[in-house]
Amino acid sequence: MEKIMGVTREIQVKQVNIQDPFWSAMQNRMIDVVLPFQEKVLNDEVEGVEKSHAIENFRIAAGMGEGEFYGMVFQDSDVAKWLEAVAYALSIKPDPQLEQRADAVIQIIAKAQQPDGYLDTYFIIKEPQRRWQNLQECHELYCAGHMMEAAAAYFQATGKDQLLRVTERLAAHIIGRFGPRDEGKEPGVPGHQEVEIGLLKLYRVTGKQKYKDMARFFLEERGKNPDYFYEEKRRRGWQHWGQYSLEPPDNQYNQAHATIYEQKEAVGHAVRAVYMYTAMADLAALDGDRRLYQACQVLWDNIVNKRMYVTGGIGSTAEGEAFTIDYDLPNDMAYAETCASIAMVFFAKRMLENNADGSYADIMERELYNGAASGIQLDGKRYFYVNPLEVQPGVSGKLFGYQHALAQRPGWYACACCPTNLARLVASLGAYCWTERGDTVYSHLFIGQTADLEHAQITIESSYPWEGKVCYRIKPKSRQAFTLAIHLPGYLDLEDGTTKVTVNGEAANIQELTKDGYLYLGRSWEEGDTVAVSFALPVRKLYASQQVRDNAGCVALMRGPVVYCFESADNGSCLQSLRIPAKMEADAFLCQEGILKGNVLLRVKGYRMKGADGLYTQVRPVKEPAELTAVPYYAWANRGEGQMRVWLLEEGV
Amino acid sequence: MEKIMGVTREIQVKQVNIQDPFWSAMQNRMIDVVLPFQEKVLNDEVEGVEKSHAIENFRIAAGMGEGEFYGMVFQDSDVAKWLEAVAYALSIKPDPQLEQRADAVIQIIAKAQQPDGYLDTYFIIKEPQRRWQNLQECHELYCAGHMMEAAAAYFQATGKDQLLRVTERLAAHIIGRFGPRDEGKEPGVPGHQEVEIGLLKLYRVTGKQKYKDMARFFLEERGKNPDYFYEEKRRRGWQHWGQYSLEPPDNQYNQAHATIYEQKEAVGHAVRAVYMYTAMADLAALDGDRRLYQACQVLWDNIVNKRMYVTGGIGSTAEGEAFTIDYDLPNDMAYAETCASIAMVFFAKRMLENNADGSYADIMERELYNGAASGIQLDGKRYFYVNPLEVQPGVSGKLFGYQHALAQRPGWYACACCPTNLARLVASLGAYCWTERGDTVYSHLFIGQTADLEHAQITIESSYPWEGKVCYRIKPKSRQAFTLAIHLPGYLDLEDGTTKVTVNGEAANIQELTKDGYLYLGRSWEEGDTVAVSFALPVRKLYASQQVRDNAGCVALMRGPVVYCFESADNGSCLQSLRIPAKMEADAFLCQEGILKGNVLLRVKGYRMKGADGLYTQVRPVKEPAELTAVPYYAWANRGEGQMRVWLLEEGV
Repeated sequence: MEKIMGVTREIQVKQVNIQDPFWSAMQNRMIDVVLPFQEKVLNDEVEGVEKSHAIENFRIAAGMGEGEFYGMVFQDSDVAKWLEAVAYALSIKPDPQLEQRADAVIQIIAKAQQPDGYLDTYFIIKEPQRRWQNLQECHELYCAGHMMEAAAAYFQATGKDQLLRVTERLAAHIIGRFGPRDEGKEPGVPGHQEVEIGLLKLYRVTGKQKYKDMARFFLEERGKNPDYFYEEKRRRGWQHWGQYSLEPPDNQYNQAHATIYEQKEAVGHAVRAVYMYTAMADLAALDGDRRLYQACQVLWDNIVNKRMYVTGGIGSTAEGEAFTIDYDLPNDMAYAETCASIAMVFFAKRMLENNADGSYADIMERELYNGAASGIQLDGKRYFYVNPLEVQPGVSGKLFGYQHALAQRPGWYACACCPTNLARLVASLGAYCWTERGDTVYSHLFIGQTADLEHAQITIESSYPWEGKVCYRIKPKSRQAFTLAIHLPGYLDLEDGTTKVTVNGEAANIQELTKDGYLYLGRSWEEGDTVAVSFALPVRKLYASQQVRDNAGCVALMRGPVVYCFESADNGSCLQSLRIPAKMEADAFLCQEGILKGNVLLRVKGYRMKGADGLYTQVRPVKEPAELTAVPYYAWANRGEGQMRVWLLEEGV
Repeated sequence: MEKIMGVTREIQVKQVNIQDPFWSAMQNRMIDVVLPFQEKVLNDEVEGVEKSHAIENFRIAAGMGEGEFYGMVFQDSDVAKWLEAVAYALSIKPDPQLEQRADAVIQIIAKAQQPDGYLDTYFIIKEPQRRWQNLQECHELYCAGHMMEAAAAYFQATGKDQLLRVTERLAAHIIGRFGPRDEGKEPGVPGHQEVEIGLLKLYRVTGKQKYKDMARFFLEERGKNPDYFYEEKRRRGWQHWGQYSLEPPDNQYNQAHATIYEQKEAVGHAVRAVYMYTAMADLAALDGDRRLYQACQVLWDNIVNKRMYVTGGIGSTAEGEAFTIDYDLPNDMAYAETCASIAMVFFAKRMLENNADGSYADIMERELYNGAASGIQLDGKRYFYVNPLEVQPGVSGKLFGYQHALAQRPGWYACACCPTNLARLVASLGAYCWTERGDTVYSHLFIGQTADLEHAQITIESSYPWEGKVCYRIKPKSRQAFTLAIHLPGYLDLEDGTTKVTVNGEAANIQELTKDGYLYLGRSWEEGDTVAVSFALPVRKLYASQQVRDNAGCVALMRGPVVYCFESADNGSCLQSLRIPAKMEADAFLCQEGILKGNVLLRVKGYRMKGADGLYTQVRPVKEPAELTAVPYYAWANRGEGQMRVWLLEEGV
């Protein structure tokens, strides 16, 4: 294995205190609205919401309650994701009562664990004789992975190790059972990838090599025997979910069709896929494994160059919540699951740990401000699992082919993956802002904050994404020189003078100092040193590849990292009749009232086509001037049901 | 009931001998390829095709064979539709051997009929105790209707009445069972409309009022008790097809949600709907029933003004093969069943019998040359059930939402409705060309032929649809004056001098003589009188209503009645990157070779957009001149699998 570069130091959530015009509100929403609501749901205290029973399942498994298991076979993961989010929340905003309640839940989980380390309430309560027989469908390893992530986070946040010890016992159980056949173990792999991520987090927290080895086994064993799941199925003679029976070649669904080194295209269930790529990239960075990193890069390129919506959404079909084929990106039928965009943030973070290339940070930013953020209503109370780029009342959410693509965010689902996933992402956002490696600290995101880093405390004052003004104030911890590498978003023009960086008021030569999207400023920093980044944020027109059928003739508007969309609330009905002029005049303005207050909206002088009467006519439509208003995509569907489009036809051609 | 106009005389197929550049080939294909193939399928003599067993079912029911029923619950209708098509074929091209074989099949059917007149092999063989208990799902009345149509046709073609007597006994059985509750009958209505059409054909052949009364009962009873099918279901306690359980409000699926007078929108399964509208219009014409005609007109308007593809295709969703909502006309997800276009031809014919308005003939023509004709491959051997207006290899027929919309015609289906329906339509095309009413003979279609009509023998020499030259030669049967009313297609310009009509070489004042799309030429005709119609056939650009999301910014090309499309075979891949110029130069040319020989194709000077590399880019695509070729839509998918689009973006706006 060839080493790429020194291993990065992972930033912990508690090192970062976010104060940001965009993300502080989002974090508060998560901590103040989503987590308490989720806690009530997990405890079955919310009326009108499908029963969770998730904590009760643990109580029953622990012998502390009576009754039957209830919920999905992966119900345990809801508790794990909540605990992980709570850990991050406690890092940001200490809350002794919340911590006490979380401790109590951990206590129950610990009691539910079996003497041999096994932990999965579905099988403990319901089918103890069927443990580990159905890796393909039954999510035992998936739940274990989430519990490991929660344990690592909770330990880092509170220093308490009860859950960490539980998951180490669980990991020992797993390591004892799965591995190479010649070691007398079962060469199984998870049906839904996630345990690989969890094991690597255990490794990071404990430093124990065996967890990393186990993660590598699960990754490299996958697809070596593409028939593994079918053999397992024949052996056990029963199924959990008939519809996921997955005869070949459907093992693409969970990326078990080929080894990770042979996979050249992103296929199958998008979340499974990108969780796997995330673990691959994580392991590649930890081991400096260039071959593995290159395998990741191939898959990354396939996604971002051929299979990703402009919002960052991935997995374009509802069938299997999956990738389809290159350039198949229908706007109104999009699946583009919130969790899949979140997974892309994970993947991007790990890719950055392999190679500080701004293109990863660009995608991370695209996902955060668009495909992931759109998952939650501005009041924090409702959630999109599916993030279409076009909706039409009467069609979206109703007709065949569009039933998954709702025009309004629904409430809490029984399968509550996206809200809990979003909660843990947003609560841990600080950890995504930086990578430290040797004497370089990489700043990936223009998010306002104070960060306590290896070499310095750095405060970022930011009015991003609404304005192009970001200021870094450095308070070094020693006189030792270090390099601050600031990611300059890929859309910035570094040559026309609109992007400026000054260090203590003195202009830096950005063209000379920037490599692969990072501006490298190395010096012996002194307290009070200030790096000011300023840049123009013009409204940009994006054109899709000609290969994308659904965007032919269209443009999408972006300003900074924010994708915009057009809604009926501002533009009336029949959005398909609107046109963006070839030479566009667009004003960005701060919304002063209503639910969108504080967001920068766009006002575009455009056109509305007026056609003759009749379904088909020989009369050419005529254009009338129309003032169009676009709102940030993440904020759509907050003003009642209406039509929405990201892509509008452009006048001209 | 207010009378509209005198009842029309129905033209029989044997009165017309078609000699036409377009339709003769199509008729020959039906008679020489489709009918013999279908006969073999019905007799289970074709390998590699799903077993039909349809004739064997009748043999078993007749006690002439042993075994089990096999096939769909409506399998009998395949035999009926074949017999009906055979009847028309015999009218066109006598074939004593074929007639003998048909007689033999009729013999079997007659033997299968039960002593009480009941006739349905599924229930006779398989579930005799369940007769008439499941009108919603089980198609007994549907099969009866098709058998009545076959009987009427066979009687008209051959003078033989065995099948007619069978169906009269069957009709008597039905009349004895169904009707008003206060007459001690069951107020049932068919789950799939068709028997209404069949009964009216029996009425036309026999003149017996009771058949017309029964048809009216079925039509007017429908939707009076919208819960009828649910009550029936509760009563019987079993289901045939679980998936068609249809709880309210799904009784829209078979138009049982409201009375025919209350229905204002075309909803539900498109074929069921339009079969019903056809019977309504038929009955309205027979009875001169203005209220019923107006009910038809409301539904007609809803279809043709809001729910019809430019090809005439109707029923835009695969789910339930159904209408959806106004202006929901996705091109690549279209269902647009061939049978539904055929049904629109039936409906148009009956509307013309109420009111000689050219707009009905225009739709009939649109369906015939496009949505119906596209159902069959040019070699007659493969058939489209679904007629999308756009296909994309790798997506169409493969991915979720598009699985029904195949890019190539498949072979014979188990549910072989469309090929048999197309066979009977094309074989009986002569009957759609004319309506006679009093002293007026209406010519609806420019189809070359010799027709033996009430007042005259009329020969039409036509080079339509490829050229605008049609000549009527009249050989009157008496000296009595009559009016020849010639439909001038709605797309013709009657004012700019490009459309000319001469009577014996003398120009007719078409503006003065034309009303509602018909040119009325009344005189005492003499043998050798000639009416020559000539007109320009420019390539026309069609724009869809701004309300149609999927056609925004696009144009479709038509020439005469023919809709054109663009295929990869001529234009390479990435058809979405093609543009039709705002000022279009298009040449029509006769294809001289290959499978499309004899068709007029279009050559358009257009553009191909070239975009920058990358999935999303700020670089505006540039246009490059490209010579585009369009082929008639009906002839698409005859040259291997590729991309196809009817609608292309227009340059400009």
